Amino acid sequence: MNIEMIRAAAERLAGHARRTPMLTSPFLDEIAGRRVLVKPECLQHTGSFKFRGGWSAVSALDEETRKRGVIAFSSGNHAQGVALAAAKHGCPAVIVMPTDAPQMKIDNTRALGAEVVLYDRPGGESREEVGRAHQEARGLTMIKPYDEPQVIAGQGTTGLEIAAQARAMGVSEADVLVCCGGGGLTSGIALALEAEAPGLRARPVEPEEFDDATRSLASGQIEENARTSGGICDAIVTPSPGEITFPIMQRLCGPGIVVSEDEAMRAMALAFSRLKIVVEPGGAVALAAALFHGGKVDGEAVVAVCTGGNVDAEMFAEALARFG
Amino acid sequence: MNIEMIRAAAERLAGHARRTPMLTSPFLDEIAGRRVLVKPECLQHTGSFKFRGGWSAVSALDEETRKRGVIAFSSGNHAQGVALAAAKHGCPAVIVMPTDAPQMKIDNTRALGAEVVLYDRPGGESREEVGRAHQEARGLTMIKPYDEPQVIAGQGTTGLEIAAQARAMGVSEADVLVCCGGGGLTSGIALALEAEAPGLRARPVEPEEFDDATRSLASGQIEENARTSGGICDAIVTPSPGEITFPIMQRLCGPGIVVSEDEAMRAMALAFSRLKIVVEPGGAVALAAALFHGGKVDGEAVVAVCTGGNVDAEMFAEALARFG
Repeated sequence: MNIEMIRAAAERLAGHARRTPMLTSPFLDEIAGRRVLVKPECLQHTGSFKFRGGWSAVSALDEETRKRGVIAFSSGNHAQGVALAAAKHGCPAVIVMPTDAPQMKIDNTRALGAEVVLYDRPGGESREEVGRAHQEARGLTMIKPYDEPQVIAGQGTTGLEIAAQARAMGVSEADVLVCCGGGGLTSGIALALEAEAPGLRARPVEPEEFDDATRSLASGQIEENARTSGGICDAIVTPSPGEITFPIMQRLCGPGIVVSEDEAMRAMALAFSRLKIVVEPGGAVALAAALFHGGKVDGEAVVAVCTGGNVDAEMFAEALARFG
Repeated sequence: MNIEMIRAAAERLAGHARRTPMLTSPFLDEIAGRRVLVKPECLQHTGSFKFRGGWSAVSALDEETRKRGVIAFSSGNHAQGVALAAAKHGCPAVIVMPTDAPQMKIDNTRALGAEVVLYDRPGGESREEVGRAHQEARGLTMIKPYDEPQVIAGQGTTGLEIAAQARAMGVSEADVLVCCGGGGLTSGIALALEAEAPGLRARPVEPEEFDDATRSLASGQIEENARTSGGICDAIVTPSPGEITFPIMQRLCGPGIVVSEDEAMRAMALAFSRLKIVVEPGGAVALAAALFHGGKVDGEAVVAVCTGGNVDAEMFAEALARFG
């Protein structure tokens, strides 16, 4: 896993992934007490940065492998990112989703061209077994959500853009706060910044009770979450940092920051009123850290990556009602 | 008023106004029955395209005039656009607002560095008289919201970007739908497209009951609205097209399109779920026309400009509750 893979992914993504802008607001600067630069990956295709990793992985396959197709386990942003990336390559995609996933997510994934295979999660069926049957019968290639070099390379292209955009805005030293699940985006950005903007330092941000990356960085070994589901930040809830992502984070990242769910919702409301973007709870924790945990951040500016915007109307309205 | 003024404005805006991206969604394409390209000016500084015109006008003043300051009448997006543009030039700005404007808008305009002068609208005080006193005493330059060449030039830079972005996406023939108040943005975009993308044609979109531009284009003379306030599309309610803007629109624009308020709110809900952007009712009418009035549009693709996102949380939540 190295910077050359990220640069190669950027070439494959050019003209396909969206180069998201860098947003600012004087009102957010005032709350944070420093300049706040926001990278809105909610504006990426399929509403999250996951499209980058999906495209990178699918486009890296040789033609014959791609023709057989890909498979992914996900009920969320990774599912949609892989589905659209595969569809645009004319590559079959099987997405294994639980029967109790929201119907909207199942419908969206199908509408993006994927074949959705359901497994009976409440009834105790194993998604691995269901997936393996399809994978073996059809020779599908598994695309893991984060612990996969080509996926990390795709997510890392976000870091190349941050480096260039921060430089153009006169920011050469800052913490870059990243909403962190398994660490694919955080480690990819960290590698990109190491090469392109060494004054910028990636730092993972997590919600309370799901702070595995923060604790792992503190202890120096991979720590696990007590729970692997629950809470409103579902997009970034994973059991633990990955075996590929953690060593990269350990070498390059600053300490993690943990925020509350209420802080994430408050950041969603401010992203609505001040930036005019839609951010989901798990995609708002980095902005929450920038705005409400400034004492843990160094420098005259801070970059926050808003990683996704796939939130339903009820949850969004609740954030506005409570904090708008 | 000509293309050279727009190009000169683009040079003055470079590095100051945001180059907003061009967004797409396969879900919107399916609703519209053609490719839909969305230019989200809600992501512009101050949440609307008005910052472009404000910056263009303030930056075009000679230094001595600028030092004395500018004045504008507005309780909305023009106020904020002029306020921030002036503040960034170190130029005093007086914004004349009614006492019954929402406190939030008064606070925002002040926070952007402007001096807010209130006039007693409910009590029948004339804003022109209140404004004139300040203007004459201090030698302030009036910045009109649309019928002002440097303002039109600034708004027209949106058209230069649309021309380049549509070309990069392989779209050379399409209607470009623009939410239209006094016609500053519509006429500016029309001039830019004439020069840079002659296969793209600007068309104004308005809400029912405030369709002055549509009727003016149909009759060939400036028509007025029966009302100049009311409804949810306040950002684009004006008495009639301007004396500078109308002849340009008459020469270059296709017919206007009129949408209902419910269609505007439905477009807001789809912009939320499919594009992850926040659009205000008046800023959503062009997208509503692209999605729900496809029969009046020509071509395999359509461009819709989402002009602003300054909507309060209650109104936004209502759009989500009804159409989300």
